[in-house]
Order: sequence, then C-alpha cells, then structure tokens
Amino acid sequence: MGAAPLLNDKVYVEPQIFSFGNFTLENGESLARVDIAYETYGRLNAAKTNAILIEHAFSMDAHAAFYHAGDARPGWWDTMIGPGKAIDTERFFVICSNVIGGCAGSTGPSSLNPATGKPYALDFPQVTIKDMVAAQKKLIDHLGIEKLYSIVGGSMGGMQVLQWLVSYPQAVRSAIPIATTARHSPQQIAFNEVGRQAIMADPKWNNGNFYGNEIPRAGLSVARMVGHITYMSEKSMAEKFGRRTKSDQDNTKFHADFEVEGYLRNRGDFFVGRFDANSYLYISKAMDLFDATEGKHLSEKFYELDAKLLVLAFKSDWLYPAYQSLEIVTACKVSGVPVSYIEIEANYGHDSFLVETEKQSHLVRHFLSRVDELIY
Amino acid sequence: MGAAPLLNDKVYVEPQIFSFGNFTLENGESLARVDIAYETYGRLNAAKTNAILIEHAFSMDAHAAFYHAGDARPGWWDTMIGPGKAIDTERFFVICSNVIGGCAGSTGPSSLNPATGKPYALDFPQVTIKDMVAAQKKLIDHLGIEKLYSIVGGSMGGMQVLQWLVSYPQAVRSAIPIATTARHSPQQIAFNEVGRQAIMADPKWNNGNFYGNEIPRAGLSVARMVGHITYMSEKSMAEKFGRRTKSDQDNTKFHADFEVEGYLRNRGDFFVGRFDANSYLYISKAMDLFDATEGKHLSEKFYELDAKLLVLAFKSDWLYPAYQSLEIVTACKVSGVPVSYIEIEANYGHDSFLVETEKQSHLVRHFLSRVDELIY
Repeated sequence: MGAAPLLNDKVYVEPQIFSFGNFTLENGESLARVDIAYETYGRLNAAKTNAILIEHAFSMDAHAAFYHAGDARPGWWDTMIGPGKAIDTERFFVICSNVIGGCAGSTGPSSLNPATGKPYALDFPQVTIKDMVAAQKKLIDHLGIEKLYSIVGGSMGGMQVLQWLVSYPQAVRSAIPIATTARHSPQQIAFNEVGRQAIMADPKWNNGNFYGNEIPRAGLSVARMVGHITYMSEKSMAEKFGRRTKSDQDNTKFHADFEVEGYLRNRGDFFVGRFDANSYLYISKAMDLFDATEGKHLSEKFYELDAKLLVLAFKSDWLYPAYQSLEIVTACKVSGVPVSYIEIEANYGHDSFLVETEKQSHLVRHFLSRVDELIY
Repeated sequence: MGAAPLLNDKVYVEPQIFSFGNFTLENGESLARVDIAYETYGRLNAAKTNAILIEHAFSMDAHAAFYHAGDARPGWWDTMIGPGKAIDTERFFVICSNVIGGCAGSTGPSSLNPATGKPYALDFPQVTIKDMVAAQKKLIDHLGIEKLYSIVGGSMGGMQVLQWLVSYPQAVRSAIPIATTARHSPQQIAFNEVGRQAIMADPKWNNGNFYGNEIPRAGLSVARMVGHITYMSEKSMAEKFGRRTKSDQDNTKFHADFEVEGYLRNRGDFFVGRFDANSYLYISKAMDLFDATEGKHLSEKFYELDAKLLVLAFKSDWLYPAYQSLEIVTACKVSGVPVSYIEIEANYGHDSFLVETEKQSHLVRHFLSRVDELIY
C-alpha cells in the first residue's frame, strides 16, 4: 500500500478501493454497499502516528499527487504533496479519498444500484459532508489509524476538515482548513443553485436518467463556466485575458469574440468529459446544506477538540472571503483551541490554494513540521 | 407630448414611437426601418434647454417613471424622476428611450424583418452602444433639442452616457454616469458569456428561431439568475435571506431548500415573461464590445467635451467596482473636464442605483440644480 515506484523521475501511484456495506446516512437512508476510491503516498510508520488525510474540493478526486501510468500531469495537489514538499511523503503517510456521491471511483449517483442493477441516478440518497467524512472515518479505521497527524483541505475539502473536527474531535492532532467556511452564505448557495438549474434545464438531463444516452453536456458546461468565474479573481482574469480578442474568429453570431469567452467554453467542455452531472447536483447540494455549527455557535462544537489549527484564507478569494475563515478562528479562540491564521496575498482568487501554492507551502510545511512544539 | 394627466394621485404616461429609415450601423450593415419606443415626462421649455435624457440599463425599457394605465407599479426609476424629485419634472423635460436591439417597442431581433416578413432573429445585425446612442441622437434631433441639459444613466445606461460624450461632445451640458465603466473587464464579459451560453444551450432557442414556438424559457431563466446574483451584494443577500429554508418544501430532489434558491427561480421565471432571449444575446454582446476609449486613453476622447460630470459608484457594487468609475474621473481630470465623484455607501450592490436611491437622489438633485454655478 502506498509504495511508490520511481520511473523516469516520475513517482507513480495506483488508485485503490475500500468497500464496506450497510452504510446509514445522516438522513436515515442507507446504502447496501459503498466503494471509496483512495490513494496513499509515503509509508505509514509502525506506531501509525504519521498519517495525514487530504480532503479534496468539489470537482477533484483521490488523485492528489504523483502520476498514474500514462499521465502527462500529476495529481491536483502535487505541488504540495511529495518527497521534501510541504506535505512531505518522506515523513508522512498521506491519504486522499474521493468523496461519497462522487464520480471518480466512489459510490455515487452514477454507480449501479444493487437493488435494480441500473445506475442510481436520482434514487441515490442525498449525501452530506457529514456522510462523506463518516465514510472516510471507516477508511481510516480500516487502515488501523487511531489519530490522524493532520487533516488538510481547501474549499469543500476545508468543510470536510471542519466536519472531522466536529464529528471525531479525538481522532485529529492538527488540522488545516483552507479557503473555506463553516457554512455557505446565500451568495455561495445562489451560485451553486445556478449551476444546478443549468444542468436540470438541459432536456438531456432527463430528470437524472441520462446514463446510456447522451449526457447533459450543454447544461453541465454552463454550470462549470459559472463556477470557473467564481474560482478566479477579477485581477487574475484581467491579467490572463485583458480584453484580447480571439484570433480564430468564426463568422457565426455570438461566437467567442474575447479570449476569456473561449477559455470558459473550453473549461466547460473539458469538464463535461470528466464529471457526472448528477454528482454535480448531489455534491453541490451537500456543500449548501453543510453547517458545521449545527445551529449553535461554532465554538461550542469545538469544546471537545484536542487539536491545533492553521487556518488559511486568500486576499483575492471573493467566493470564500476571509471573514468566513475568521469565523473559524474566532470559534477556536472562544473554545480555547490553539489556532494560527494567515490571510495570504495571492492573485488567483479561490483557486489560489490550488495554483498559487508557494506561500501556502511555506506555511503548511512550518506548521506540520512542529505541530507539537508550536506555541500559540 | 409628455403631458401627464393626474388621476387618483398617479401620474400617467403613454409610450410613444419614433420611426426613421435607412439607419447604417457601426458595423456597416443597415436597417431599412427603425422604431424607437420612448416616453417623456414634464414639458420642454420654449428655448428647448431643459431636456434630460435618461439611459436605461440592460433589461430595462423606456418606462422610467409615472404609470401606464392599469399598472400597479410605476416606471423603473420613479423614485428619481417626477415632480419635486431629483430629476424634477416640474423643471425638466425628461426623455427615456428604449435601446435599439431591445424588445420593449424598439426595433430588435424579435421585430419583423421587412425583407422577409418574419422576425429577424439572428439576421438582426449586431448593434453596439454607439448605434443605440446614434438612434437616440436622431430622436433628440427630431424633438428639436440641440443640447441636452443632462444625460443620466446607470450600468449599461452609464455606458450610453459615456458614448454620448464621445460621439456628440457638443450636444451635452452635463452628464451623470452611474455604476458603470468605459469598458467591460474580462470578469464582466465572462458573466455575460455564461448568460449567453445558458440561452444558446437551450434546444428551444433553436439558433434564434423560436418565434411562434416555445421560447427558451429554461435557458433565459438561468441567464437571469446569474445576472441577478451579480446585481446584488453578498451582504444584501445575507440580510435578505440568511440561510432560511423555504416553508413550502416539496419532496422532489433538488427543489429549492433555501429561500435564496426560490427567490432566484422566481426572478428567472418572471424575467422570461418579459424579455426576449435574442435581445438578451444582442444587448449583452453590445455591452461586452463597448469600449469608450476606442483604443486610446479615455481622456483623449474627452478633449472636445464641454460638459460637467457627476460620477457615482456604490461601495457594495462588486460587478462594476468603484475603480472603473475612477478611471472615468481620471480621464476627466486629465482632459480638463470638470468632474465630481462620490462613492456612495450602499448595501445593495450594483442594484443600489435602482433600489437604494436616497443618497443618490440628494447628489443628483444638487448637481442638476446648479450645473452652471458648480465650482470644481
């Protein structure tokens, strides 16, 4: 498990599957069988005290680092995870699991429903961030790990980090929620809702029953385009595109005149090939329903916590603005949880945690290298 | 013209049409016949020196103030325009015209193409902000007005204000561009492009040929939802909705759990009944193509200007951020055009110029009351 053969200077990794049965969800429904796709990097030590769980964002998967055979590009957080990197695989055993409800190897709406032999589609139950984390807890138990050295994630990954702290406060020594929130604002819900409406407006979506037929390509592409705008900053868009026009103009009306239009269309088209439209609905809804406070003040949910936190936000992130990270910091202070907070100067908006990782690397490396010695 | 009979304390107004032929557009194409819907409020004085032109925003129309017979609500800027109001119809003759390309009485893609007897649809030429303003100039000439006392508009209305200053610098004594920009940023283009893609993704759009059949309701509704989020501020959404859930929950999957979702769906549905999907494409594209600088520094376009400006922006407006208004102010300073600038404290985001008009009223009233005496 997690052995990483070195070939041509690339470190390769193979996805794994962990399966379990009779999983009861937060809403009372249950799944007869659950598969969770996961990857590991580095080696678990004998005492099993060096495990770090990576939580992925909305549209990501378990492939956080290293290469799959044949891949031109490594996993989505390879800048952060690897030998000598901020999350150092020479020292830590790093785990990343795909979320339940997803479409990258884990059980989700595109999986076969054992009761019918057909894909679940909308018969799949509405999973929550709490369910995603409960499934991960089973994986961590299965790996024999009692306490995680750390748990790290950005955006929806950060929501899972917070849910771990609330659900399993004794199972985590440290945590790094990045560019995230204890609960979505109406604006964040609204952007997700537009994405869902775009998908459901596509007749090919067919109330979720499109498997085996044409997929709702147009609707899913529009949903992704909306998301993509919110992940970038105005400044990074201005720097990347300005008002430059495309050189390959065609003569049809409402073609992409501007580079930014062509870029968005490409991102939408690319996404359609790798993401399930129903998973988009389920997972975005799980984010909107997420509320780590569970109706209380977040600090009350942290009373049993025995962990140290590093909370990171990005100045140009207008989708998950810094005040939402500061609410987490405030809850830590009120409940006596040791916490460091840094608002990182970065231009790339919400995507900064994925694409502008130099300062983030420095902070995460420092935090992880001396969790026990840090004085707050 | 413009006589406003008073009934039941409501001032009524009737829409009018101004028609002309052989209108050559910026792109070289021409329209054999153009109708412009317009309304007037107040009376033109004998010297014809008291006319104020109101420029409407993207989805608005010529009905800026007063009531149409049977209307429960007055025009879209009735808080600003009327007897004793900031744009005082006791003193000024106020004109508002629907833009060319629109769908509220003016010639646009839903109008009959005289060459075929069928609606233009995508055979309608791509009009620009410059074309909209050129058509208004014909209306103003027709009314016998040589020089406008002022020209006022927010958002796309502000773009038309700027284009007037560039196209007809001698025909304007003062101008109030509000919450606008000399040209769209890539982020603004991107949001418009998502709206266009949502419409064009709807099979009922049928490459623009939906007249006489079902309209692309779903796509147009999604487009409006995206727009609506960008018109509000995060704060105004939080105040209006919080995370309150709807009381009339149904049992279908992906219903509107949160009030904000239901609100957006309602706004989208309402919009579909009153706006043409092709006009959405043409007008949003006109906004994206607009560039008052025409490749120069904006100040160079203002050299011939003999007008005084009041530039207004709103602190919570993240769609047309204040820096874009400041670019207009800078151009005025550089070219020696007298200008006042105020960034108004308001919570409603871009919509503030429509819905939070108290401070704006005060500033506009003050500016208009003494354009000649103002010292800069």
